[in-house]
Amino acid sequence: MKAITLLYGDTRSNSDMLYLGGIHIHDPFFCFESNGKAYALLNPLEIGRARKSSKFDGIFDSHRILDTLPQRRRLSGDDCDAVCALLKSEFKARRLRLAYNFPLYYADRLSEARFDLEILPPGELLFPRREVKSKWEEKQIRRANVAAEAAFFMVEEMLRRSKISGGKILFDGEILTSEMLIREIEKTAIAFGADAMDTIAASGAQACDPHCAGHGPIAPNSLIVVDIFPRMRDSGYYGDMTRTFLKGIPSEAQMNLVETVKEAQQAAISNLKAGVDAASVHSKVCEFFDGRGYKTGHTAKGYFGFFHSTGHGVGLDIHETPRIGRANVKLESGNVVTVEPGLYYPEIGGCRIEDTVMLCKKSAKLLSNYHYEWIIE
Amino acid sequence: MKAITLLYGDTRSNSDMLYLGGIHIHDPFFCFESNGKAYALLNPLEIGRARKSSKFDGIFDSHRILDTLPQRRRLSGDDCDAVCALLKSEFKARRLRLAYNFPLYYADRLSEARFDLEILPPGELLFPRREVKSKWEEKQIRRANVAAEAAFFMVEEMLRRSKISGGKILFDGEILTSEMLIREIEKTAIAFGADAMDTIAASGAQACDPHCAGHGPIAPNSLIVVDIFPRMRDSGYYGDMTRTFLKGIPSEAQMNLVETVKEAQQAAISNLKAGVDAASVHSKVCEFFDGRGYKTGHTAKGYFGFFHSTGHGVGLDIHETPRIGRANVKLESGNVVTVEPGLYYPEIGGCRIEDTVMLCKKSAKLLSNYHYEWIIE
Repeated sequence: MKAITLLYGDTRSNSDMLYLGGIHIHDPFFCFESNGKAYALLNPLEIGRARKSSKFDGIFDSHRILDTLPQRRRLSGDDCDAVCALLKSEFKARRLRLAYNFPLYYADRLSEARFDLEILPPGELLFPRREVKSKWEEKQIRRANVAAEAAFFMVEEMLRRSKISGGKILFDGEILTSEMLIREIEKTAIAFGADAMDTIAASGAQACDPHCAGHGPIAPNSLIVVDIFPRMRDSGYYGDMTRTFLKGIPSEAQMNLVETVKEAQQAAISNLKAGVDAASVHSKVCEFFDGRGYKTGHTAKGYFGFFHSTGHGVGLDIHETPRIGRANVKLESGNVVTVEPGLYYPEIGGCRIEDTVMLCKKSAKLLSNYHYEWIIE
Repeated sequence: MKAITLLYGDTRSNSDMLYLGGIHIHDPFFCFESNGKAYALLNPLEIGRARKSSKFDGIFDSHRILDTLPQRRRLSGDDCDAVCALLKSEFKARRLRLAYNFPLYYADRLSEARFDLEILPPGELLFPRREVKSKWEEKQIRRANVAAEAAFFMVEEMLRRSKISGGKILFDGEILTSEMLIREIEKTAIAFGADAMDTIAASGAQACDPHCAGHGPIAPNSLIVVDIFPRMRDSGYYGDMTRTFLKGIPSEAQMNLVETVKEAQQAAISNLKAGVDAASVHSKVCEFFDGRGYKTGHTAKGYFGFFHSTGHGVGLDIHETPRIGRANVKLESGNVVTVEPGLYYPEIGGCRIEDTVMLCKKSAKLLSNYHYEWIIE
């Protein structure tokens, strides 16, 4: 008998559940897949909406199931009792497949209820088909990147309208800050039906810490890393793009850095197609940087050079498989990944350039589309 | 020997980790509390930023720990190996406390590494002190509600400027939709440094499904439930408020419904203070509605009446303990909860009125502040 795949969580933190049901549900619940069909166990608050607009093939009312359970099977009176009863009586289930991060407490309860549990390790996907995007999914990712592109346009326009004065960038007379750029980026994304959370707009030393969002004044004559990954509010799919800008006049070291990252990024994109090993694409980027004299390493203060992977899958999660890093992975047609090499040296600045691509038989197709001009005078 | 509390996740989906470290980290990681001090195990990408701006008392580099492990202790070469080694060698740990939703796979690995695991059930908090808010936390929740208040102001203004024509509400000549209201609410929140995700602005039958966000045209002469729960981008604390509006002329049934909900909400707030049993506050609301002839039940189409709880705790999670529902909970000074009774009848409409309050010795202090006028002509 085939195992039933059981999930627990909310659709914000568990994208497999969003994938299965195609509906946003914010309080944690159980859902499962059995013989290719998807079912959810919901409380009264969610049932009406879920019946109307989810992809679930069946929806069960957890309160009603609990109400009909004999006392000996109501151990805690929670949804776990209800799901145990449902899986046993209606689905004759014995074996359950669980994700690596299935809640420990409920797993113990399922064991006590004598289900056999198959626990997937962190790397293994509950739904491997998520790695191969459909036409519809491609369109969702493209839509999210359109929101990012509009936001880049806004950033450039703000930088263009700004003036450098007294070592600061002034926008309409006000000191331009990371926060101002981020606010405008996020407002722009909302106008496109997307949420751009955790946007990065960082200059100076902040741009050398790839996970620093940026705060305070944007420095003139300094590289500004702008990383935007909007998520479509309706479908939940992400886009992901980065551009690096500079307001003022670049130094030769900045010019070389940006041109080298650009070249690496374009080369990596042209190396991507179905059948290629992700690790080979990543190691070529590393070798290219190294060959150009851009060394990677660390000091007591932190890492320098190129110290993250070349890219990652994008879909309902901002970071998903396949990854373009050190691990050997044979890429497939329909994979959607970012290509985002970067170089970070506190004495020069940080630069990252990122696009989202979809792998095809003979090449990689861009799902993001924005120019690479970076100097704004 | 005292147990060490171990956590795994990202700070977006695991607010205990945000509470412990006071920093947003978006890729999953391990952190733990030992003898009142907090530690994190991070990868090189996060370390610089976390050392600068987190509350962690100690930060360990997972890559470096892995690099120095003997082969026999590198089972998977992942952070779980590193955290096992660290907890054993540096912290001499034997007993670990884990949340109910600690990832099953890592729990199995910890068991194999011979740690004793204490698993908390879903209701039990890893950090019960989270239920009692500090002055600083109160301020954060207040700030988030200021963002909500500004957004209500915007909604009212849009409704006021709109005109009813041909059974539609026209705003600047365009048909006013839920999506337009939600967009403006979220833009307003961003201007206040907050993210208002999953805002509800629903009229007509949609307002009777408390988890329906609303879509399409806002109906004239119909109750419009607007539920806004912005989260401060910097601190991660939520506010939570709901108001119900109507554009046009209300029926008598609508008038009675709204006035009854208002009265129930004010009464519930006045019943709240330290030492009170949450269930008694909730049951008084139920009895009040029932006494006024507003019955609760369900048909094949769904639930009607008052079928959710009176309120819930608010903090780093939008729904946290203590809850003001059927369960007996003795409320304490410093608890921050919503008070949000509602009535939903498809033939009349939906109405919910919600404020956030902080419990004090002798009363409940409002942490939200917006008027209750609801008819906009």
